[in-house]
Amino acid sequence: MKTDSGTVDVGAFDFECGADIPSLDVAYESYGEFDGSNAVLVCHALTGSQNVAGYGENTAGQARAWWNDIVGAGKAIDTNDYYVVCANVPGSCYGTTGPASPGPDGDPYGTDFPPVTVGDWTRAQRLLLDELGVGRLHAVVGGSVGGMNALDWAQRYPDDVRHLAVVAAAGRLDPQCLALDAIARRAITTDPDWNGGDYYDGDPPTDGLALARQLGHVMYLSKASMERKFGRRAAGRDAQRESFPTDPAAAYFPYRDVESYLDYQAEKFVERFDANSYLYLTRAMDDYDLAEGYEDDADALAAFEGETLLLSFTGDWHFTTEQSESLAESLRELDAPVAHHVVESDHGHDAFLVEPEKVGPPLRDFLDDGVDGRAVHDTEEEPESLPDDRDFAPVHSSLFSR
Amino acid sequence: MKTDSGTVDVGAFDFECGADIPSLDVAYESYGEFDGSNAVLVCHALTGSQNVAGYGENTAGQARAWWNDIVGAGKAIDTNDYYVVCANVPGSCYGTTGPASPGPDGDPYGTDFPPVTVGDWTRAQRLLLDELGVGRLHAVVGGSVGGMNALDWAQRYPDDVRHLAVVAAAGRLDPQCLALDAIARRAITTDPDWNGGDYYDGDPPTDGLALARQLGHVMYLSKASMERKFGRRAAGRDAQRESFPTDPAAAYFPYRDVESYLDYQAEKFVERFDANSYLYLTRAMDDYDLAEGYEDDADALAAFEGETLLLSFTGDWHFTTEQSESLAESLRELDAPVAHHVVESDHGHDAFLVEPEKVGPPLRDFLDDGVDGRAVHDTEEEPESLPDDRDFAPVHSSLFSR
Repeated sequence: MKTDSGTVDVGAFDFECGADIPSLDVAYESYGEFDGSNAVLVCHALTGSQNVAGYGENTAGQARAWWNDIVGAGKAIDTNDYYVVCANVPGSCYGTTGPASPGPDGDPYGTDFPPVTVGDWTRAQRLLLDELGVGRLHAVVGGSVGGMNALDWAQRYPDDVRHLAVVAAAGRLDPQCLALDAIARRAITTDPDWNGGDYYDGDPPTDGLALARQLGHVMYLSKASMERKFGRRAAGRDAQRESFPTDPAAAYFPYRDVESYLDYQAEKFVERFDANSYLYLTRAMDDYDLAEGYEDDADALAAFEGETLLLSFTGDWHFTTEQSESLAESLRELDAPVAHHVVESDHGHDAFLVEPEKVGPPLRDFLDDGVDGRAVHDTEEEPESLPDDRDFAPVHSSLFSR
Repeated sequence: MKTDSGTVDVGAFDFECGADIPSLDVAYESYGEFDGSNAVLVCHALTGSQNVAGYGENTAGQARAWWNDIVGAGKAIDTNDYYVVCANVPGSCYGTTGPASPGPDGDPYGTDFPPVTVGDWTRAQRLLLDELGVGRLHAVVGGSVGGMNALDWAQRYPDDVRHLAVVAAAGRLDPQCLALDAIARRAITTDPDWNGGDYYDGDPPTDGLALARQLGHVMYLSKASMERKFGRRAAGRDAQRESFPTDPAAAYFPYRDVESYLDYQAEKFVERFDANSYLYLTRAMDDYDLAEGYEDDADALAAFEGETLLLSFTGDWHFTTEQSESLAESLRELDAPVAHHVVESDHGHDAFLVEPEKVGPPLRDFLDDGVDGRAVHDTEEEPESLPDDRDFAPVHSSLFSR
């Protein structure tokens, strides 16, 4: 597979907020060969990176080769057929300019970096694709907040997108998720090591960032997946409460598998992610609202004439099946070709990453044949193939479900 | 209404963990007159207090007169008929001995206070009732972790309880709630002001405790109630981000109603609650498992011959209807008189506090007439009166529910 990676300086960049920076680097990777009409832009999730697929080896984690099961030669997004591009978003910390990047004076921007929006991500991706010689895209595909990024493409550059695949996403976050994100940010900013965002020559706010990440993890799982993965079990002997302070009374109670898992995930995360980027990117996600400046979602997408696949997961309470169905209804209102493909899964939001066998086929057939693709199902067209009402309901499945 | 409040020193107290303290004060309130067989013990929730009802005035908040709509003269738990007792649990901070109380050396115990369990709460309540001259109880009633406390009564002192009312509770927490509680504790212990629990002569860890409380609040609400209360609205002009540090980029984005609400709640909470108590009491809740030491829940309750009312709420994802139904099934296995009364509500866990009009009638009739009480419904006996499947499912109701 032909691959390419690099960083393109797209020049001075005007942010939606009105501020600008003298130059914006955009880090990207591409897989496969461009034939003039086969470009697929993949948009990454909150803490993801441009490294959407591995170069043959099996890497793990959300920033490294995060969709390796989906993107590659012979895989659902087949790099033998498609030229796949993924770019790290502005405000992130994987090579594209963000708070941790040096500003004009050579010091890290820190919180002098302008606030970013999902719209800024889309505009930066457009500039990158211009540099790469890509005009119209065969498809834009994104999961989670990357799905919002994809939606923004269809609204902002409707003529540039032939196929839109929005995976485990929504037109906007609901207030429960807004609340949890605000609490996560507060965990970072109340960590004294955050120091107003100016910590790059000292200790970073790892305690706050760890808390934020642990909250995120709970949002990505479901009651059912947590019951299956952890139950109420104590962690193994080797597991230690090491990553944060504790007190003598705590030792009377088991250190549970679920705590050990969250502590381990948090420890790994703080090594790879920048706390200011976490603030910036969650704000962009929280702020995103497809209908902003329009009557409603349908109005926002009225100019888009491509085909749309919405993929949602029954156990996902971060981005629910109902939110995807609402988007589907908006597109149906417009008589736009749309399929809302509901995947029965109790994996929670994580399903889009951990169940490639369910995500791959509809995605593959949608890229090849649009909404009429063989493995693409739609809530409206084939009601008999839908999971029953209960499974379709937004799930915090109970450990005691009957 | 005759009321009484005070603190009883029940003497040296041996905790379940094996540690002891030389004297345990138990703070309590009582309402109504004891006639020898009309005592109702009410068990408070995590951050509640013995002040279950007001003395006529309308006070607010979870620690002050927290069930004033349910307990009082002419109310569901009618203090004209019943002698109602509520005691603050060991480890709390409303008068019963806990980490903030002075130890034998005159200094606050801090984290030298022994770890407490729900069983310790029950045993302390038993000692208090002995002092008050109350032997067998007409009823034990508890909500949330107070419902676990009530369950523990039926398991530990089966002959002392004629009626058991378990409201919005479960035999044990599920791993999702265990995870959120662990994150909340980590927020406290990573606050430098926590200082290993030794902060009573300095600044308390208000940042950490505020985060813990905000997480709790999200657990008490539901997607639907948050959508109705806050939506994605910006807070009013007067609302300010004042309670925690922020950065210039944050100002570009709205300070939302939901954030303002959580910040306000957290500010109020840190004034009234002790951070160490929060650690101790959440550990007790997390640790509680009705079946521990038994084959299963039915085995744990086998010796209990009283009647049981389980009240659960369809929108509650902290303690789900399925968890209550599982308890009901265990009691049915034992041929014990039980009613599982499901309240249709999208208020989340908070429903047991904020929907007295739905909680009161079944509680009142259960206290008077047991499971055959007029307003008491049961999932098994009257399936046609149940909400439909979808409403019955554990809800994170979507803002887009159709």
